[in-house]
Amino acid sequence: MDIICAISTPAGVGGIAVVRLSGKGVKEFVERFLSYTAAKSAGLSVRRATFCTLHDADEIIDEVVVTWFAAPHSYTGEDVVEIGCHGSLYVQQRVLQLFMDNGARLAEPGEFTMRAFLNGRMDLSQAEAVADLIDSRSETAHRLAISQMRGGYSKELETLRQQLIDTAALLELELDFSEEDLEFVSRDRVSGMVSDLKSRVERLVNSFQTGNAIKHGIPVAIVGRPNVGKSTLLNALLGEERAIVSDIPGTTRDTIEETVVVEGFTFRFIDTAGLRQSSDTIEMLGVERSREALKHASVVLYVVDSDCEDEVYEAAKMLDAESQSLIVVRNKMDCIEDCPNPKQHSRISDLQNANVSLISAKTGLGLDELKRLMVESVQKHIGEQGDVLLTNARHYEALCRVLSALDEVRKGLDAGLTPDLVVIDLRDALYHLGTITGKVSSDDILSSVFSRFCVGK
Amino acid sequence: MDIICAISTPAGVGGIAVVRLSGKGVKEFVERFLSYTAAKSAGLSVRRATFCTLHDADEIIDEVVVTWFAAPHSYTGEDVVEIGCHGSLYVQQRVLQLFMDNGARLAEPGEFTMRAFLNGRMDLSQAEAVADLIDSRSETAHRLAISQMRGGYSKELETLRQQLIDTAALLELELDFSEEDLEFVSRDRVSGMVSDLKSRVERLVNSFQTGNAIKHGIPVAIVGRPNVGKSTLLNALLGEERAIVSDIPGTTRDTIEETVVVEGFTFRFIDTAGLRQSSDTIEMLGVERSREALKHASVVLYVVDSDCEDEVYEAAKMLDAESQSLIVVRNKMDCIEDCPNPKQHSRISDLQNANVSLISAKTGLGLDELKRLMVESVQKHIGEQGDVLLTNARHYEALCRVLSALDEVRKGLDAGLTPDLVVIDLRDALYHLGTITGKVSSDDILSSVFSRFCVGK
Repeated sequence: MDIICAISTPAGVGGIAVVRLSGKGVKEFVERFLSYTAAKSAGLSVRRATFCTLHDADEIIDEVVVTWFAAPHSYTGEDVVEIGCHGSLYVQQRVLQLFMDNGARLAEPGEFTMRAFLNGRMDLSQAEAVADLIDSRSETAHRLAISQMRGGYSKELETLRQQLIDTAALLELELDFSEEDLEFVSRDRVSGMVSDLKSRVERLVNSFQTGNAIKHGIPVAIVGRPNVGKSTLLNALLGEERAIVSDIPGTTRDTIEETVVVEGFTFRFIDTAGLRQSSDTIEMLGVERSREALKHASVVLYVVDSDCEDEVYEAAKMLDAESQSLIVVRNKMDCIEDCPNPKQHSRISDLQNANVSLISAKTGLGLDELKRLMVESVQKHIGEQGDVLLTNARHYEALCRVLSALDEVRKGLDAGLTPDLVVIDLRDALYHLGTITGKVSSDDILSSVFSRFCVGK
Repeated sequence: MDIICAISTPAGVGGIAVVRLSGKGVKEFVERFLSYTAAKSAGLSVRRATFCTLHDADEIIDEVVVTWFAAPHSYTGEDVVEIGCHGSLYVQQRVLQLFMDNGARLAEPGEFTMRAFLNGRMDLSQAEAVADLIDSRSETAHRLAISQMRGGYSKELETLRQQLIDTAALLELELDFSEEDLEFVSRDRVSGMVSDLKSRVERLVNSFQTGNAIKHGIPVAIVGRPNVGKSTLLNALLGEERAIVSDIPGTTRDTIEETVVVEGFTFRFIDTAGLRQSSDTIEMLGVERSREALKHASVVLYVVDSDCEDEVYEAAKMLDAESQSLIVVRNKMDCIEDCPNPKQHSRISDLQNANVSLISAKTGLGLDELKRLMVESVQKHIGEQGDVLLTNARHYEALCRVLSALDEVRKGLDAGLTPDLVVIDLRDALYHLGTITGKVSSDDILSSVFSRFCVGK
């Protein structure tokens, strides 16, 4: 394949930047532009970081550190050369321009990783995890991506695949020996295997809501009557965490907007635009907008400033106890002399997935405890899922198709269809499973997967 | 020295990022957090890029490529470890946090380079050139910085220094043998040497205006009567070049504002705010603002739409023919049927440093030729300087002090002062010269030099 090149480090000015090239003959291609200062370094050797000057004819472009990764032991599986240059905009562009002027091509987004996939260095779900890893903004999103990149998820899929193949093999065996009364033995086994497969795929499909929430932020709705302090609560939650994030220099702050990261979980406040513009838009729970926010939230913070058991109880009934958590936030505790007994919310504490938190958004009293409750409510959902969480919408779609193919298999078995017909649906399930790891791939799938990447990876 | 760490690549999200650490024992420090996937890689070896996983106890932070540069053959002269990790904000922060939690300290801006200076890997003017290189946005600024970083300028200064020391030695010799009539011989030689030194330092001091202009952009003033098309000309000059700059993805555009880069020179339009807000603010050349713009410009584009010899001639007289160039820009050539003969500006062509350019800012006619004239006028000034251009205000100040100390030496010699008194002024010159390369340094100088850097370099 032709030689591709790109700036792999973030755009902008920094101490150093890395320009990466990949393709057959890239070592010799780059060496034409290098001269070595140390006499003993007479060229690039494998994986050795070599200090040299990069030049275009007589012009010295920069003093650089060059490392050659020989095929197949490189990121892409091809020869790869990485050039660490000074991080000025001019130098970065000039280095790239040098290679482009001499026949290298600017890499498409994700093209290095696509080559890694095409050369068998990783499967498609691992490649997607690389993009997720680069996008990750919280500990949990990062952990899921790392685990998927390192193949934990691929192993789970490979087990499913193997089971599907085994099942199909059993059915095909039955075809071959259909005259010999093998049928009923194997049909029972096949039926059991399909049930097992279905429940495993279902578990994965069901983990998508949690996995997706972790990846994109767990949706939190703050609701309640006007003037109970919803905006103050939002600011209190946002404000503190922003300060923590900005502790480390060199991080951009524009991405955190209306999210906070607590103990590695990103919480995303939905419908906060409404909250911020005017807290009066949500005048009562009956308002359509609040209903929508409630519907999409994993965690609902119901803010009250006095006892209003009935109102809260009504709201709680609207939630799905399986997948949504309600936290009743009793605000303005700083204005109350005697601390009320949380147990007085007796009907509320009967509710599944409901907790009561006593806070003052103004003074910060009780905020830590509220955050702990938010984290706990998410951890409970994760605990109910297995080790592997589905985070990718493309995979979710493919697994739903696997599931409906398995439904067809079950129907076929129940209706006593002949094995050759049942096998067709099993192969369909296998096909859709294969699209996830790239055992089966099309140009459409590849271009949609790799367009998510930044250039240079 | 303690272990410092920083993200050395630009801030933001990218394919990869580099975290750099420097200090005694940094290899062992980092190795505690690494585990190797390939059995044969049983640890870090010098300059070998090693693939491994970085972990904090049980948590896998990332799959990384780690390179150890052993002291003294590293950027800082100490042990250095560079970690190439995935370029997500979370991963970058997490890697940095890991090291900071375990005793490393976040590096101050420029601290890596400051250590390189303190360990004798480069002199102070070379260290400053590293910062200039990272800031450089045009070919010429880049070339000056590279040359200074590679020591071309340091060599020139070292020659001056050696000459100063030789001169002082001669005077001191005279002191020792003052009884033996050596005086008159050496005093003539000393006088000659001081003259030579003075002219060399003067040449450097005089190159500052050009060097500084190249580094920060060559100031260009666009002046002329209302409605001659000054703003259109500015837009035409800005517009085209912007398109070229944005050819290469991953470059930020906010830095180019009112500057254009032509053939490697950055031209900076001064007082363009006035031009943009209203071209009527400059109603005639007599206006104070135009005068100011003229005074600070290296190149003056005097825009006219008809013959106005006298007006231009008056303006030309205000310019310093030594250091300023005038280009008379005859605009709106698209509205004229017969192309006028440039020679008709006979009085103008008599002027030193004046050229005539026939353009149409609207259609783009003649713009290339105008740009060529702008570049030529700068090249002429550079040609008059030597190979080494002074670009740094701190150096300029120091050399001015060297010069005034040499003036004192000259006065002392002329007045027939005793050698011991003359030597005091020579030592003063040596001191100020030494502050440039850091032979003489104080905490004040160091902190002012290195505060210009970004963190991570």
